[in-house]
Amino acid sequence: MENIKVIIWGFGAMGRGMADMLLDKKGVTVVGVVDLNQALIGKPFTTVLNRPEHHGVSITDDIDALLSSVKADVLLLATDSFVEGAYEKILKAVSYGVNVISTAEEMAYPRAGHEVMTKAMDQAAKAKGVSVLGTGINPGFIMDLLVVALSGVMRDVTMIEAERVNSLSPFGPAVMHEQGVGITLDEYNRRKSDGTLAGHVGFKESVYMIADALGIKLDHFEQDMAPIIATEDRKSPYGEAKKGTLAGINMTGQGISDGRVMINMIHPQQIEPELGGTTTKDRIRLQGRPEVHMTISPEIDGGLGTIAMCVNMIPHVINARPGLRTMIDLPVPRAILGDMRDLLETS
Amino acid sequence: MENIKVIIWGFGAMGRGMADMLLDKKGVTVVGVVDLNQALIGKPFTTVLNRPEHHGVSITDDIDALLSSVKADVLLLATDSFVEGAYEKILKAVSYGVNVISTAEEMAYPRAGHEVMTKAMDQAAKAKGVSVLGTGINPGFIMDLLVVALSGVMRDVTMIEAERVNSLSPFGPAVMHEQGVGITLDEYNRRKSDGTLAGHVGFKESVYMIADALGIKLDHFEQDMAPIIATEDRKSPYGEAKKGTLAGINMTGQGISDGRVMINMIHPQQIEPELGGTTTKDRIRLQGRPEVHMTISPEIDGGLGTIAMCVNMIPHVINARPGLRTMIDLPVPRAILGDMRDLLETS
Repeated sequence: MENIKVIIWGFGAMGRGMADMLLDKKGVTVVGVVDLNQALIGKPFTTVLNRPEHHGVSITDDIDALLSSVKADVLLLATDSFVEGAYEKILKAVSYGVNVISTAEEMAYPRAGHEVMTKAMDQAAKAKGVSVLGTGINPGFIMDLLVVALSGVMRDVTMIEAERVNSLSPFGPAVMHEQGVGITLDEYNRRKSDGTLAGHVGFKESVYMIADALGIKLDHFEQDMAPIIATEDRKSPYGEAKKGTLAGINMTGQGISDGRVMINMIHPQQIEPELGGTTTKDRIRLQGRPEVHMTISPEIDGGLGTIAMCVNMIPHVINARPGLRTMIDLPVPRAILGDMRDLLETS
Repeated sequence: MENIKVIIWGFGAMGRGMADMLLDKKGVTVVGVVDLNQALIGKPFTTVLNRPEHHGVSITDDIDALLSSVKADVLLLATDSFVEGAYEKILKAVSYGVNVISTAEEMAYPRAGHEVMTKAMDQAAKAKGVSVLGTGINPGFIMDLLVVALSGVMRDVTMIEAERVNSLSPFGPAVMHEQGVGITLDEYNRRKSDGTLAGHVGFKESVYMIADALGIKLDHFEQDMAPIIATEDRKSPYGEAKKGTLAGINMTGQGISDGRVMINMIHPQQIEPELGGTTTKDRIRLQGRPEVHMTISPEIDGGLGTIAMCVNMIPHVINARPGLRTMIDLPVPRAILGDMRDLLETS
């Protein structure tokens, strides 16, 4: 059997991490890398990664030429956070008969907010006999799939709470800006009111994924954000929060069912949380029979986790029935220590 | 759409719990209950459960008559711990075109120890277009599926450790006997050497499930048991361990790869663990990139958990491709709060 052939579209931190991980895996080959950054175009992607491999694949900005000339099994799309940005790119890859895995947070459960585009992607994928999946560490795993999986041991569930307390310190300038690290409370209030402070993207997707998986009928979903003010000077490789400015944002979200909070999401993200006395962790609390109280501490690394989730889902996406799939439709993710082709279904 | 029709074979603690749970679920009906206990035969199963429902189904000991007269979608088999005991019963249900979910610990991953019977069950299920699954809280979830799922966030895995520290206090006389609760150290040594002390069944299945899922090549599997001696008098509803006798058994197991322990399992079970200063918990530790340290405390209730897992997997087993399936082949389990039929795939 030939190696699984993968194209990576978007060669930022996530795309590079996936390429680096794929170089260490057996039974899979990176056959194309796409990015619009002029400084990267024409360079072998292995050179950009500082890897010793002499790899023939150079970075291109011409996705159509690449998809026309190379038959890939899977395209890893690491360019967007929102469905609106990822949508046309996904349709393009699908039109060439390529399976797609997207890091876009909203693609983890696009029907939560984008019914029409969800149907269009599903139909296009079915017409071409391929499948499309959005995944990542969160949404995609910690605050949704893991919640769903743990509920599987329960007879009744009366309340769901998921909390992810993580550090933003490993992240780069784009995340520092999205999360308002270092801005004043005035600027926070201005950017919050004019909608230019993204905070965490994906609560709505996580909440609807859980609700649909368990058969919870939601009245509505709501979310809010609050500033995390540094009570001391903090500094991370790409961020700085002087005392009194924003160390990060605490996002909260709720799925309301029968007039009460059935799904409660808590997700404070900040640089150097230890300086503020905060211990990082992932925590899931499920009330019902039996109760489940889970803690992962420290929290699962967001960058490494998203990279691994996307790569590790490659065989599942190839195996999947055609159409738009979500993490609750597919077998559980798993680390791939052997040959990736061993995970392909043959019967 | 008609309700999903379920037969329960084996009306002990697990079978009764499943029946009780199913009575509270929408879109599913218990259409038959089988048990060999003469005291139960002919009684409505709802009467045995002390449920108020007037349900037409009485307990029978004639499985062939039942399977001939009632078309069921799924049979829940709660009669055995070992493949050898469950095998003929599974083949019988399959021969009538019924999907099967088995609580037998070894059925969670039967190929670990029973290659020939595994193939026979797989072929029989495929020939009849149905699927067969073994599941439960452990094996089936805590020390295998959850380990696999958590590894999905990892790029590399160098060592896997799963620990389940639980209380035997809720369990009945059969478990007290299997686990040697209250016996002397001399009797423990005698029963251990003549093989009449079961301890935990399922380590081999869990270890091979993890290894196959992640692509770990095992040199071999080994396990051992050690007595947990009560340092004080202990008493549970069905068990008693005087000071100096067995409060339970600590089972340990290892999957050896490349000459070293790659998968390490630790599972001490005892009555009233708190009296010995033991805190119950489920713990998973995955070394590699990124590391994962998960704790569920207290441990997930074993009885309720097994009952829920079997019931909650009903729609997945109906949806599954025909053949012998395992938890790593199917979508994640989930609590079912709505109509069970909503989880059936229609396209």
